[in-house]
Amino acid sequence: MPDELIVEEPLEIRLDGHRVATTMRTPGADFELAVGFCFAEGLLAEAPVQQVRYCATGSAVDTEFNVVTVETGGVAPIPEARLGTTTSSCGLCGSTTLFELESRLTPLVDPLRFSAEVIESVPEAVLGGQKLFGVTGGVHAAAVFDSAGEISTVREDIGRHNAVDKVVGTMVLEGRLPARDLGLFVSGRASFELVQKAWAAGFSALVAVSAPSSLAVEAAERAGLLLVGFARPGRINIYTGALLPN
Amino acid sequence: MPDELIVEEPLEIRLDGHRVATTMRTPGADFELAVGFCFAEGLLAEAPVQQVRYCATGSAVDTEFNVVTVETGGVAPIPEARLGTTTSSCGLCGSTTLFELESRLTPLVDPLRFSAEVIESVPEAVLGGQKLFGVTGGVHAAAVFDSAGEISTVREDIGRHNAVDKVVGTMVLEGRLPARDLGLFVSGRASFELVQKAWAAGFSALVAVSAPSSLAVEAAERAGLLLVGFARPGRINIYTGALLPN
Repeated sequence: MPDELIVEEPLEIRLDGHRVATTMRTPGADFELAVGFCFAEGLLAEAPVQQVRYCATGSAVDTEFNVVTVETGGVAPIPEARLGTTTSSCGLCGSTTLFELESRLTPLVDPLRFSAEVIESVPEAVLGGQKLFGVTGGVHAAAVFDSAGEISTVREDIGRHNAVDKVVGTMVLEGRLPARDLGLFVSGRASFELVQKAWAAGFSALVAVSAPSSLAVEAAERAGLLLVGFARPGRINIYTGALLPN
Repeated sequence: MPDELIVEEPLEIRLDGHRVATTMRTPGADFELAVGFCFAEGLLAEAPVQQVRYCATGSAVDTEFNVVTVETGGVAPIPEARLGTTTSSCGLCGSTTLFELESRLTPLVDPLRFSAEVIESVPEAVLGGQKLFGVTGGVHAAAVFDSAGEISTVREDIGRHNAVDKVVGTMVLEGRLPARDLGLFVSGRASFELVQKAWAAGFSALVAVSAPSSLAVEAAERAGLLLVGFARPGRINIYTGALLPN
Protein backbone atom coordinates (compact mmCIF):
# COMPACT_ATOMS: atom_id res chain seq x y z
CA MET A 1 0.00 0.00 0.00
CA PRO A 2 1.23 3.55 -0.62
CA ASP A 3 2.28 5.49 2.47
CA GLU A 4 3.29 9.13 2.93
CA LEU A 5 6.88 9.59 4.14
CA ILE A 6 8.40 12.53 5.91
CA VAL A 7 11.19 14.01 3.79
CA GLU A 8 14.72 14.04 5.22
CA GLU A 9 17.50 15.89 3.38
CA PRO A 10 20.83 17.32 4.54
CA LEU A 11 21.13 21.09 5.01
CA GLU A 12 24.51 22.75 5.27
CA ILE A 13 24.44 25.95 7.31
CA ARG A 14 27.04 28.63 6.67
CA LEU A 15 27.68 31.85 8.56
CA ASP A 16 29.35 34.55 6.45
CA GLY A 17 30.56 31.79 4.16
CA HIS A 18 31.99 29.57 6.91
CA ARG A 19 30.40 26.17 7.29
CA VAL A 20 29.08 25.76 10.83
CA ALA A 21 26.89 22.66 10.65
CA THR A 22 25.22 20.06 8.49
CA THR A 23 21.89 18.84 9.77
CA MET A 24 19.45 16.25 8.48
CA ARG A 25 16.20 18.15 8.22
CA THR A 26 12.77 18.26 6.65
CA PRO A 27 12.90 20.94 3.91
CA GLY A 28 10.85 24.06 4.59
CA ALA A 29 11.61 27.18 6.67
CA ASP A 30 15.28 26.60 5.82
CA PHE A 31 16.24 30.26 6.32
CA GLU A 32 14.59 30.27 9.73
CA LEU A 33 16.36 27.02 10.60
CA ALA A 34 19.76 28.43 9.66
CA VAL A 35 19.22 31.70 11.51
CA GLY A 36 17.79 29.94 14.55
CA PHE A 37 20.73 27.54 14.71
CA CYS A 38 23.30 30.36 14.51
CA PHE A 39 21.41 32.41 17.08
CA ALA A 40 20.78 29.65 19.61
CA GLU A 41 24.35 28.36 19.43
CA GLY A 42 25.59 31.87 20.19
CA LEU A 43 27.36 32.15 16.83
CA LEU A 44 25.69 35.43 15.85
CA ALA A 45 26.74 37.06 19.11
CA GLU A 46 24.91 40.37 18.77
CA ALA A 47 25.39 40.67 15.01
CA PRO A 48 22.22 41.54 13.06
CA VAL A 49 21.34 39.28 10.14
CA GLN A 50 21.74 41.20 6.88
CA GLN A 51 20.68 38.50 4.46
CA VAL A 52 19.86 34.81 4.28
CA ARG A 53 20.13 33.00 0.98
CA TYR A 54 20.51 29.64 -0.67
CA CYS A 55 23.93 28.93 -2.10
CA ALA A 56 22.80 28.89 -5.73
CA THR A 57 25.59 28.58 -8.24
CA GLY A 58 23.35 27.49 -11.06
CA SER A 59 25.52 24.44 -11.61
CA ALA A 60 23.40 21.86 -9.82
CA VAL A 61 19.75 22.69 -9.86
CA ASP A 62 18.52 19.93 -7.61
CA THR A 63 21.03 20.47 -4.84
CA GLU A 64 21.31 24.23 -4.55
CA PHE A 65 18.55 24.38 -1.97
CA ASN A 66 20.53 22.31 0.53
CA VAL A 67 23.06 24.98 1.48
CA VAL A 68 21.97 28.15 3.28
CA THR A 69 24.23 31.07 4.12
CA VAL A 70 23.45 33.53 6.90
CA GLU A 71 25.15 36.85 6.20
CA THR A 72 26.12 39.40 8.85
CA GLY A 73 28.64 41.20 6.67
CA GLY A 74 31.44 39.79 8.78
CA VAL A 75 30.12 41.32 12.00
CA ALA A 76 29.61 37.92 13.65
CA PRO A 77 32.79 36.32 15.00
CA ILE A 78 34.44 33.83 12.67
CA PRO A 79 32.90 30.54 13.77
CA GLU A 80 35.89 28.25 13.08
CA ALA A 81 37.65 29.45 16.18
CA ARG A 82 34.91 28.08 18.40
CA LEU A 83 33.79 24.94 16.61
CA GLY A 84 37.15 23.71 15.40
CA THR A 85 39.01 23.61 18.67
CA THR A 86 39.93 20.34 20.25
CA THR A 87 39.83 20.00 23.99
CA SER A 88 43.34 19.08 24.99
CA SER A 89 42.42 17.87 28.45
CA CYS A 90 39.78 15.57 29.89
CA GLY A 91 37.74 18.49 31.17
CA LEU A 92 34.55 17.62 29.34
CA CYS A 93 31.50 16.98 31.48
CA GLY A 94 28.04 18.20 32.26
CA SER A 95 29.41 20.81 34.65
CA THR A 96 31.74 22.17 31.98
CA THR A 97 28.88 22.27 29.51
CA LEU A 98 26.72 24.18 31.95
CA PHE A 99 29.59 26.52 32.78
CA GLU A 100 30.11 27.35 29.12
CA LEU A 101 26.41 28.06 28.76
CA GLU A 102 26.37 30.33 31.80
CA SER A 103 29.35 32.23 30.45
CA ARG A 104 27.28 33.48 27.51
CA LEU A 105 23.72 33.48 28.86
CA THR A 106 22.34 35.22 31.93
CA PRO A 107 19.51 33.82 34.06
CA LEU A 108 16.00 35.05 33.33
CA VAL A 109 14.96 38.02 35.44
CA ASP A 110 11.38 37.77 36.70
CA PRO A 111 10.20 35.15 34.16
CA LEU A 112 6.53 35.20 33.20
CA ARG A 113 4.40 32.69 35.08
CA PHE A 114 1.79 30.54 33.36
CA SER A 115 -1.32 28.91 34.77
CA ALA A 116 -1.59 25.13 35.03
CA GLU A 117 -4.64 25.22 32.74
CA VAL A 118 -2.67 26.92 29.96
CA ILE A 119 0.27 24.55 30.24
CA GLU A 120 -2.02 21.52 30.15
CA SER A 121 -3.84 22.82 27.08
CA VAL A 122 -0.76 23.43 24.93
CA PRO A 123 -0.04 19.92 23.53
CA GLU A 124 -3.53 19.41 22.13
CA ALA A 125 -3.68 22.95 20.81
CA VAL A 126 -0.39 22.51 18.93
CA LEU A 127 -1.47 19.20 17.44
CA GLY A 128 -4.13 21.08 15.50
CA GLY A 129 -1.39 23.03 13.71
CA GLN A 130 0.74 19.99 12.88
CA LYS A 131 0.01 19.45 9.22
CA LEU A 132 2.73 16.92 8.51
CA PHE A 133 2.28 14.78 11.59
CA GLY A 134 -1.27 13.83 10.70
CA VAL A 135 -0.11 12.58 7.33
CA THR A 136 3.17 10.88 8.16
CA GLY A 137 3.27 10.30 11.92
CA GLY A 138 7.02 10.83 11.71
CA VAL A 139 7.67 14.44 12.52
CA HIS A 140 8.33 16.57 15.56
CA ALA A 141 6.81 19.94 16.34
CA ALA A 142 7.87 23.06 18.18
CA ALA A 143 5.58 26.01 18.83
CA VAL A 144 5.18 29.21 20.80
CA PHE A 145 2.40 29.81 23.33
CA ASP A 146 1.40 32.85 25.35
CA SER A 147 -0.10 33.26 28.82
CA ALA A 148 -3.63 32.91 27.40
CA GLY A 149 -2.75 29.61 25.73
CA GLU A 150 -2.73 31.07 22.22
CA ILE A 151 -0.46 29.07 19.88
CA SER A 152 1.70 30.62 17.18
CA THR A 153 4.71 29.81 15.02
CA VAL A 154 4.17 26.05 14.78
CA ARG A 155 7.12 24.46 12.97
CA GLU A 156 7.64 20.79 12.07
CA ASP A 157 10.75 18.80 11.32
CA ILE A 158 12.06 15.26 11.48
CA GLY A 159 14.50 16.57 14.11
CA ARG A 160 13.16 18.08 17.33
CA HIS A 161 16.14 20.44 17.53
CA ASN A 162 15.52 21.59 13.96
CA ALA A 163 11.87 22.35 14.73
CA VAL A 164 13.03 24.50 17.66
CA ASP A 165 15.65 26.23 15.51
CA LYS A 166 12.93 27.05 12.96
CA VAL A 167 10.81 28.65 15.68
CA VAL A 168 13.72 30.60 17.13
CA GLY A 169 14.91 31.71 13.69
CA THR A 170 11.43 32.92 12.78
CA MET A 171 11.37 35.05 15.92
CA VAL A 172 14.87 36.42 15.27
CA LEU A 173 13.87 37.48 11.77
CA GLU A 174 10.62 39.01 13.07
CA GLY A 175 12.47 40.89 15.83
CA ARG A 176 10.48 39.14 18.57
CA LEU A 177 13.35 38.08 20.85
CA PRO A 178 13.92 37.87 23.78
CA ALA A 179 10.69 35.94 24.27
CA ARG A 180 10.12 36.66 27.95
CA ASP A 181 6.31 36.78 27.67
CA LEU A 182 6.15 33.45 25.84
CA GLY A 183 6.68 29.74 26.33
CA LEU A 184 8.20 27.16 23.99
CA PHE A 185 6.52 23.81 23.36
CA VAL A 186 8.28 20.73 22.01
CA SER A 187 6.88 17.36 21.16
CA GLY A 188 8.98 14.54 22.58
CA ARG A 189 11.66 14.80 25.20
CA ALA A 190 13.48 17.80 26.68
CA SER A 191 17.22 17.36 26.24
CA PHE A 192 19.95 19.70 27.39
CA GLU A 193 20.21 21.05 23.85
CA LEU A 194 16.58 22.17 23.81
CA VAL A 195 16.85 23.92 27.17
CA GLN A 196 19.92 25.70 25.83
CA LYS A 197 17.98 26.94 22.80
CA ALA A 198 14.96 28.02 24.88
CA TRP A 199 17.25 29.88 27.27
CA ALA A 200 19.14 31.59 24.46
CA ALA A 201 15.85 32.85 23.02
CA GLY A 202 14.70 34.11 26.42
CA PHE A 203 11.54 32.00 26.76
CA SER A 204 10.04 31.90 30.26
CA ALA A 205 8.92 28.28 29.94
CA LEU A 206 9.77 25.07 28.12
CA VAL A 207 7.00 22.47 27.90
CA ALA A 208 7.78 18.97 26.63
CA VAL A 209 5.42 16.08 25.98
CA SER A 210 7.92 13.55 27.27
CA ALA A 211 10.76 13.27 29.79
CA PRO A 212 13.56 15.76 30.47
CA SER A 213 17.14 14.64 31.04
CA SER A 214 19.19 15.28 34.15
CA LEU A 215 21.32 17.88 32.39
CA ALA A 216 18.22 19.56 30.96
CA VAL A 217 16.85 20.00 34.47
CA GLU A 218 20.17 21.39 35.72
CA ALA A 219 20.36 23.86 32.84
CA ALA A 220 16.73 24.97 33.31
CA GLU A 221 17.42 25.53 37.01
CA ARG A 222 20.35 27.82 36.16
CA ALA A 223 18.28 29.64 33.54
CA GLY A 224 15.33 30.23 35.87
CA LEU A 225 13.02 28.58 33.32
CA LEU A 226 9.77 26.78 34.05
CA LEU A 227 10.54 23.27 32.78
CA VAL A 228 7.53 21.00 32.32
CA GLY A 229 7.69 17.38 31.17
CA PHE A 230 5.08 14.74 30.39
CA ALA A 231 2.58 17.48 29.54
CA ARG A 232 -0.76 15.74 28.99
CA PRO A 233 -4.32 16.92 29.52
CA GLY A 234 -4.95 16.85 33.25
CA ARG A 235 -1.39 16.01 34.23
CA ILE A 236 1.98 17.78 34.06
CA ASN A 237 5.32 17.25 35.78
CA ILE A 238 7.09 20.41 36.91
CA TYR A 239 10.87 20.03 37.17
CA THR A 240 12.03 23.61 37.66
CA GLY A 241 10.36 27.00 38.11
CA ALA A 242 6.84 27.73 39.27
CA LEU A 243 3.33 28.12 37.92
CA LEU A 244 0.98 31.01 38.55
CA PRO A 245 -0.67 30.42 41.95
CA ASN A 246 -4.32 29.37 41.72
CA MET B 1 7.21 14.79 44.15
CA PRO B 2 10.54 13.11 43.42
CA ASP B 3 10.95 11.76 39.90
CA GLU B 4 13.69 9.63 38.31
CA LEU B 5 15.56 11.38 35.49
CA ILE B 6 17.50 9.86 32.67
CA VAL B 7 21.12 10.99 32.85
CA GLU B 8 22.56 12.97 29.93
CA GLU B 9 26.27 13.77 29.82
CA PRO B 10 28.62 14.65 26.96
CA LEU B 11 31.01 11.98 25.69
CA GLU B 12 33.97 12.88 23.54
CA ILE B 13 35.02 10.08 21.21
CA ARG B 14 38.61 9.90 19.99
CA LEU B 15 40.18 7.59 17.45
CA ASP B 16 43.92 7.09 17.92
CA GLY B 17 43.93 10.37 19.84
CA HIS B 18 42.03 12.38 17.23
CA ARG B 19 38.72 13.78 18.34
CA VAL B 20 35.99 12.56 16.01
CA ALA B 21 32.75 13.44 17.80
CA THR B 22 31.11 14.70 20.95
CA THR B 23 27.74 13.20 21.69
CA MET B 24 25.22 13.78 24.47
CA ARG B 25 24.66 10.31 25.86
CA THR B 26 23.45 8.31 28.83
CA PRO B 27 26.56 6.96 30.60
CA GLY B 28 27.04 3.21 30.38
CA ALA B 29 28.51 1.01 27.65
CA ASP B 30 30.73 3.97 26.74
CA PHE B 31 33.42 1.79 25.15
CA GLU B 32 30.83 0.06 23.00
CA LEU B 33 29.34 3.42 22.04
CA ALA B 34 32.73 4.78 20.96
CA VAL B 35 33.65 1.66 19.00
CA GLY B 36 30.22 1.44 17.41
CA PHE B 37 30.32 5.05 16.34
CA CYS B 38 33.77 4.71 14.73
CA PHE B 39 32.75 1.47 13.04
CA ALA B 40 29.38 2.60 11.70
CA GLU B 41 30.75 5.89 10.41
CA GLY B 42 33.39 3.98 8.47
CA LEU B 43 36.22 5.56 10.46
CA LEU B 44 37.82 2.25 11.45
CA ALA B 45 37.94 1.10 7.85
CA GLU B 46 39.17 -2.46 8.37
CA ALA B 47 41.43 -1.65 11.31
CA PRO B 48 41.07 -3.95 14.33
CA VAL B 49 40.48 -2.29 17.68
CA GLN B 50 43.51 -2.81 19.92
CA GLN B 51 42.30 -1.03 23.01
CA VAL B 52 39.51 1.19 24.28
CA ARG B 53 40.06 3.35 27.32
CA TYR B 54 38.89 6.38 29.20
CA CYS B 55 41.15 9.39 28.94
CA ALA B 56 42.19 9.40 32.57
CA THR B 57 44.84 11.93 33.45
CA GLY B 58 44.15 11.84 37.14
CA SER B 59 43.74 15.58 37.15
CA ALA B 60 39.97 15.77 37.14
CA VAL B 61 38.37 12.80 38.77
CA ASP B 62 34.76 13.58 37.98
CA THR B 63 35.25 14.28 34.30
CA GLU B 64 37.73 11.64 33.17
CA PHE B 65 34.94 9.25 32.26
CA ASN B 66 33.59 11.55 29.58
CA VAL B 67 36.37 11.03 27.05
CA VAL B 68 36.93 7.66 25.41
CA THR B 69 39.76 6.79 23.04
CA VAL B 70 39.55 3.94 20.56
CA GLU B 71 43.04 2.74 19.70
CA THR B 72 43.99 0.97 16.48
CA GLY B 73 47.71 1.72 16.80
CA GLY B 74 47.45 4.15 13.92
CA VAL B 75 46.09 1.53 11.50
CA ALA B 76 42.80 3.40 10.98
CA PRO B 77 43.00 6.37 8.62
CA ILE B 78 43.50 9.72 10.31
CA PRO B 79 39.92 10.92 10.75
CA GLU B 80 40.53 14.65 10.36
CA ALA B 81 40.92 14.29 6.61
CA ARG B 82 37.36 13.09 6.26
CA LEU B 83 35.50 15.04 8.92
CA GLY B 84 37.28 18.33 8.60
CA THR B 85 36.78 18.96 4.92
CA THR B 86 34.43 21.67 3.76
CA THR B 87 32.37 21.08 0.67
CA SER B 88 33.40 23.83 -1.67
CA SER B 89 30.41 23.49 -3.97
CA CYS B 90 26.66 23.25 -3.45
CA GLY B 91 26.67 19.55 -4.18
CA LEU B 92 25.12 18.48 -0.89
CA CYS B 93 21.86 16.59 -1.15
CA GLY B 94 20.22 13.30 -0.41
CA SER B 95 21.60 11.77 -3.60
CA THR B 96 25.14 12.78 -2.70
CA THR B 97 24.68 11.36 0.77
CA LEU B 98 23.46 8.05 -0.67
CA PHE B 99 26.28 8.05 -3.19
CA GLU B 100 28.89 8.49 -0.46
CA LEU B 101 27.32 5.64 1.46
CA GLU B 102 27.32 3.34 -1.54
CA SER B 103 30.96 4.13 -2.18
CA ARG B 104 31.96 2.45 1.09
CA LEU B 105 29.20 -0.12 1.64
CA THR B 106 28.06 -2.90 -0.66
CA PRO B 107 24.45 -4.12 -0.87
CA LEU B 108 23.51 -7.16 1.19
CA VAL B 109 23.81 -10.43 -0.69
CA ASP B 110 20.93 -12.81 0.00
CA PRO B 111 19.74 -11.16 3.24
CA LEU B 112 18.07 -13.36 5.80
CA ARG B 113 14.28 -13.28 5.71
CA PHE B 114 12.16 -13.04 8.86
CA SER B 115 8.57 -14.14 9.44
CA ALA B 116 5.83 -11.57 10.07
CA GLU B 117 5.18 -13.17 13.48
CA VAL B 118 8.77 -12.61 14.59
CA ILE B 119 8.86 -9.00 13.41
CA GLU B 120 5.58 -8.21 15.17
CA SER B 121 6.81 -9.78 18.40
CA VAL B 122 10.05 -7.81 18.65
CA PRO B 123 8.88 -4.47 20.18
CA GLU B 124 7.13 -6.10 23.15
CA ALA B 125 9.97 -8.54 23.67
CA VAL B 126 12.53 -5.71 23.79
CA LEU B 127 10.46 -3.69 26.22
CA GLY B 128 11.01 -6.41 28.78
CA GLY B 129 14.75 -5.70 28.63
CA GLN B 130 14.46 -1.94 28.90
CA LYS B 131 15.41 -1.30 32.49
CA LEU B 132 15.72 2.47 32.30
CA PHE B 133 12.58 3.17 30.29
CA GLY B 134 10.29 1.74 32.93
CA VAL B 135 11.79 4.08 35.49
CA THR B 136 12.22 7.30 33.54
CA GLY B 137 10.14 7.04 30.38
CA GLY B 138 12.82 9.12 28.67
CA VAL B 139 15.14 6.70 26.97
CA HIS B 140 15.45 4.94 23.64
CA ALA B 141 16.37 1.33 23.07
CA ALA B 142 18.14 -0.64 20.38
CA ALA B 143 18.39 -4.42 20.35
CA VAL B 144 19.30 -7.42 18.25
CA PHE B 145 16.83 -10.16 17.28
CA ASP B 146 17.24 -13.43 15.44
CA SER B 147 14.96 -15.37 13.13
CA ALA B 148 13.33 -17.13 16.09
CA GLY B 149 12.49 -13.81 17.73
CA GLU B 150 15.13 -14.17 20.44
CA ILE B 151 16.28 -10.79 21.74
CA SER B 152 19.87 -10.00 22.73
CA THR B 153 22.16 -7.02 23.29
CA VAL B 154 19.52 -4.57 24.49
CA ARG B 155 21.09 -1.13 24.94
CA GLU B 156 19.45 2.07 26.14
CA ASP B 157 20.36 5.71 25.69
CA ILE B 158 18.77 9.12 25.62
CA GLY B 159 19.80 9.24 21.95
CA ARG B 160 18.46 6.62 19.54
CA HIS B 161 21.67 6.78 17.47
CA ASN B 162 23.75 6.23 20.61
CA ALA B 163 21.70 3.16 21.55
CA VAL B 164 22.40 1.76 18.07
CA ASP B 165 26.10 2.59 18.34
CA LYS B 166 26.22 0.74 21.67
CA VAL B 167 24.71 -2.34 20.04
CA VAL B 168 27.02 -2.18 17.02
CA GLY B 169 30.08 -1.55 19.20
CA THR B 170 29.23 -4.52 21.40
CA MET B 171 29.08 -6.75 18.33
CA VAL B 172 32.35 -5.36 16.95
CA LEU B 173 34.11 -6.10 20.24
CA GLU B 174 32.55 -9.59 20.37
CA GLY B 175 33.56 -10.30 16.76
CA ARG B 176 29.93 -10.87 15.69
CA LEU B 177 29.86 -8.66 12.57
CA PRO B 178 28.67 -8.70 9.83
CA ALA B 179 25.26 -9.48 11.33
CA ARG B 180 23.65 -11.10 8.32
CA ASP B 181 21.60 -13.58 10.35
CA LEU B 182 20.21 -10.90 12.64
CA GLY B 183 17.89 -7.91 12.67
CA LEU B 184 18.24 -4.58 14.46
CA PHE B 185 15.37 -3.07 16.45
CA VAL B 186 15.07 0.61 17.35
CA SER B 187 12.44 2.36 19.39
CA GLY B 188 11.17 5.51 17.74
CA ARG B 189 11.69 6.54 14.14
CA ALA B 190 14.01 5.22 11.43
CA SER B 191 16.15 8.05 10.11
CA PHE B 192 18.76 7.86 7.36
CA GLU B 193 21.46 7.74 10.02
CA LEU B 194 20.04 4.57 11.56
CA VAL B 195 19.74 2.79 8.22
CA GLN B 196 23.35 3.74 7.56
CA LYS B 197 24.44 2.17 10.84
CA ALA B 198 22.37 -0.99 10.27
CA TRP B 199 23.80 -1.34 6.78
CA ALA B 200 27.38 -0.83 7.97
CA ALA B 201 26.93 -3.60 10.52
CA GLY B 202 25.44 -5.95 7.93
CA PHE B 203 22.03 -6.52 9.55
CA SER B 204 19.40 -8.10 7.29
CA ALA B 205 16.54 -6.09 8.80
CA LEU B 206 15.84 -2.82 10.58
CA VAL B 207 12.61 -2.66 12.58
CA ALA B 208 11.42 0.67 13.99
CA VAL B 209 8.45 1.41 16.22
CA SER B 210 7.66 4.63 14.41
CA ALA B 211 7.97 6.19 10.94
CA PRO B 212 10.93 6.05 8.55
CA SER B 213 12.04 9.09 6.56
CA SER B 214 12.19 9.34 2.78
CA LEU B 215 15.98 9.12 2.77
CA ALA B 216 15.92 6.18 5.17
CA VAL B 217 13.72 4.27 2.73
CA GLU B 218 15.99 5.14 -0.21
CA ALA B 219 19.07 4.00 1.68
CA ALA B 220 17.41 0.76 2.80
CA GLU B 221 16.42 0.08 -0.80
CA ARG B 222 20.05 0.43 -1.92
CA ALA B 223 21.24 -1.74 0.96
CA GLY B 224 18.77 -4.52 0.27
CA LEU B 225 17.56 -4.31 3.88
CA LEU B 226 14.13 -5.24 5.16
CA LEU B 227 12.89 -1.90 6.56
CA VAL B 228 9.84 -2.09 8.82
CA GLY B 229 8.14 0.90 10.44
CA PHE B 230 5.27 1.31 12.88
CA ALA B 231 5.97 -2.16 14.25
CA ARG B 232 3.13 -2.93 16.66
CA PRO B 233 1.52 -6.21 17.70
CA GLY B 234 -0.67 -7.30 14.81
CA ARG B 235 0.42 -4.56 12.43
CA ILE B 236 3.64 -3.65 10.63
CA ASN B 237 4.47 -1.43 7.66
CA ILE B 238 7.04 -2.82 5.22
CA TYR B 239 8.89 -0.16 3.27
CA THR B 240 11.68 -2.16 1.59
CA GLY B 241 12.66 -5.81 1.37
CA ALA B 242 10.49 -8.86 1.90
CA LEU B 243 9.30 -11.16 4.67
CA LEU B 244 9.49 -14.93 4.69
CA PRO B 245 6.53 -16.24 2.69
CA ASN B 246 3.78 -17.77 4.81
